Amino acid sequence: MFKLITIIVAIIAVILGFVINHYLQRVPDVPKLDYQRWWSDSVRPSVEDESIRPFKIEFNDTMVLDLKNRLKNRRPFRRPLDGMQSEYGINTIYLEKILDYWLKKYDFKGRAERLNSFPHYKTRIQGLDIHYIRAAPKKQRAKTVKVLPILLLHGWPSSSKEFDSIIPALTTPRSDYDFVFEVVAADLPGFGYSEGTNKPGLNPVQIGIIMRNLMKRLGFDKFYIQAGDWGAQAGSHMSTLFPEEILGFHTNMPVSSRTISSVKLLLGSLFPSWLDPKHSERIYPLKNFMKYIIRESGYFHLQATKPDTIGAALTDTPVGMAAYIMEKMGICSNRDQVNTEHSGLANLNIDDVLDTITIMWANEQITTSVRIYAEGFNWPELGIVHNIPTMVPTAALNFRYEVVYQPDWVLRDKFPNLVRSTTLDFGGHFASMHTPKELVDDIFASVKEFIKFHEKK
Amino acid sequence: MFKLITIIVAIIAVILGFVINHYLQRVPDVPKLDYQRWWSDSVRPSVEDESIRPFKIEFNDTMVLDLKNRLKNRRPFRRPLDGMQSEYGINTIYLEKILDYWLKKYDFKGRAERLNSFPHYKTRIQGLDIHYIRAAPKKQRAKTVKVLPILLLHGWPSSSKEFDSIIPALTTPRSDYDFVFEVVAADLPGFGYSEGTNKPGLNPVQIGIIMRNLMKRLGFDKFYIQAGDWGAQAGSHMSTLFPEEILGFHTNMPVSSRTISSVKLLLGSLFPSWLDPKHSERIYPLKNFMKYIIRESGYFHLQATKPDTIGAALTDTPVGMAAYIMEKMGICSNRDQVNTEHSGLANLNIDDVLDTITIMWANEQITTSVRIYAEGFNWPELGIVHNIPTMVPTAALNFRYEVVYQPDWVLRDKFPNLVRSTTLDFGGHFASMHTPKELVDDIFASVKEFIKFHEKK
Repeated sequence: MFKLITIIVAIIAVILGFVINHYLQRVPDVPKLDYQRWWSDSVRPSVEDESIRPFKIEFNDTMVLDLKNRLKNRRPFRRPLDGMQSEYGINTIYLEKILDYWLKKYDFKGRAERLNSFPHYKTRIQGLDIHYIRAAPKKQRAKTVKVLPILLLHGWPSSSKEFDSIIPALTTPRSDYDFVFEVVAADLPGFGYSEGTNKPGLNPVQIGIIMRNLMKRLGFDKFYIQAGDWGAQAGSHMSTLFPEEILGFHTNMPVSSRTISSVKLLLGSLFPSWLDPKHSERIYPLKNFMKYIIRESGYFHLQATKPDTIGAALTDTPVGMAAYIMEKMGICSNRDQVNTEHSGLANLNIDDVLDTITIMWANEQITTSVRIYAEGFNWPELGIVHNIPTMVPTAALNFRYEVVYQPDWVLRDKFPNLVRSTTLDFGGHFASMHTPKELVDDIFASVKEFIKFHEKK
Repeated sequence: MFKLITIIVAIIAVILGFVINHYLQRVPDVPKLDYQRWWSDSVRPSVEDESIRPFKIEFNDTMVLDLKNRLKNRRPFRRPLDGMQSEYGINTIYLEKILDYWLKKYDFKGRAERLNSFPHYKTRIQGLDIHYIRAAPKKQRAKTVKVLPILLLHGWPSSSKEFDSIIPALTTPRSDYDFVFEVVAADLPGFGYSEGTNKPGLNPVQIGIIMRNLMKRLGFDKFYIQAGDWGAQAGSHMSTLFPEEILGFHTNMPVSSRTISSVKLLLGSLFPSWLDPKHSERIYPLKNFMKYIIRESGYFHLQATKPDTIGAALTDTPVGMAAYIMEKMGICSNRDQVNTEHSGLANLNIDDVLDTITIMWANEQITTSVRIYAEGFNWPELGIVHNIPTMVPTAALNFRYEVVYQPDWVLRDKFPNLVRSTTLDFGGHFASMHTPKELVDDIFASVKEFIKFHEKK
């Protein structure tokens, strides 16, 4: 019997090897895409508005008053089931505490002013008003210190706000590096203060194109990228479509979505510790990983299939929006804390969390932002671009509680020039809020590797 | 090569046959369950309150005023993407129309009075106040006409209200049958006007026990059941645990959840038309069925994993609750109409839909009701009871757009005494609202078969 199984497995392995070699390794051609695709309702003018307009974040009194009235007027929650903390979802006793803080203690004016310590702008790209922070190094610096442009890209439910804790450190020269950054932190279209579209198809490939055109508008023909979450998808696509323009791609959510990578991860489950001795427990046994993914991906499933429903449902309730968003921000910061009241949220600064939710609320971006989950599938260019490796030098930073983890031998399918990979036993998905110092250190160290990579060529 | 594959398939088939025969057909013992399990926060008294209290449904002024204020105070929705109807979820232009109707035209008082045309009661079962309608035949009838007790069980997001269109017909004698029904339509605990629990574990098996004890309280030691959705799960478990008490089980959502049934459905995908020539397109090709299930099960995934999050999120917004519930009521009535503005909802009477949502809102049952999706998994008794066939005579009524479909050769795994099976090419999940006449006709015809079945024994 055992012999028979061995023979069957061997036959299957040979067939699989054949399939992998002949089909999965095939690299498609770069698709022909319109890099000036128009996303506005209005007709494209013959001469486009290329102006750059200074912008200030404002949590205006009307919005704040209405928000506070809604918070005051909330209905009582059902309490958690006996003996449960966050196993059935957000703990409503904890939620009450946060809502009370938002209502009574959160400093709307002060928090907006804090965000305004950076220079904000808006400019029109492909028909959409795109908001971004552009922060140059402020401090006096030696002439030998180069200023390098870096684009920071956030994901859901964030905005450029996510990066406020790391921008000062990125724009401050350090004694251990001969370069410093000029930072552009943009809100993805439909997020934060960037305009959403009414046209279907604004997927991460198309968002990447908009972000590249933003950088061109700002005069940056070559630049670095740091990105996580959906921003990392956009950044990965930018690296694939514009390899001559992206000097290096640093990501705290490194993922290869090539078909071969999925097959390898599946096969890897047969020999987990051999393939990734140190960190195999982050994905293997696959059964545990899948259990966790199923437990935590309900919001993803809903947003990828019915974004307009959950968008409409959360449109007029700051209470609901906060409950829905905070549950996810907590879990993604530490998925092993569902047995606590805060379910991981206490790893983040509560003012940072409330900034994020207040920005989402004030700009009424819940529907436009969750649509990215639906647009992130089913458009033909996505599968094609995912399956093309990029030669752009790449650095992977794996925090402990990042949503997914792929070992380097899988990442290299997409990023053959993976020049640096760091795996930490702490931290989570919202790295710039959770572990800003470690993130900044890794960006500096990685860009040094990117420079070396280009010097070697 | 083809020969090799044939040999491999044959070997796998033999192994599978062995596994199926020896493991999957095995019937577990009925688990020992506490049929008086206590679900209240309060300590069980030495003498339980067994009183039956008349009850009236009231949409009181305070509730209605607050609800209307919230509806008036709603924020604007994002419009659907260009060219889309309901492909991204609820169509917010249509949603606006329904919300305006709810605010300006829905007759709160009149609708409550309509529900009060039936006699309503509450009684305390296992510590929880359970609400039900008990409707005896009103009209004069011949002495030869027997009165048979039938329990009607609804699912999410419904309540006993779901049955108001069929109760009059079930309690009216017909010339073609020598029996008529005394109807008990109960709200499941945590739904409608029935109290929810604060204890974990109130799954469909436990709900079935409560419903059986309700019927005992009302003096019905033997009775029929008609049920759909989660009510059908509870009804199936009642048939399994109390086969001597359930005279027949009529369901418009017939499902066998035995392991062997899943295996058979999977294998059936190899020869779909041979196994179910008429209706194979309702599940095969499995790829299409899975696509539809993935497209429509985001809410299920979320509710099964994070019920307290979506519950908290919808607690204070009638707008959100309506959007979220209506999308599902529409799709489940006709899943092929996502390319319309109403997405299937126009198949139902809008007052029926708004009764359902108003009851959910007024009783603040969103969290307790969605918890059934989480409780419906992971408790050991569920898998055991699912895997025990019941000898209770059963009738299956398959409407065209029911969420799932299983051919009779699969249903018989769980219901060997499937005495009637009807498959219609119209209708949907909310049968008693959508196609009340056909549902009632099938109940009468099925109960006649149940009676014949018992006479033959």
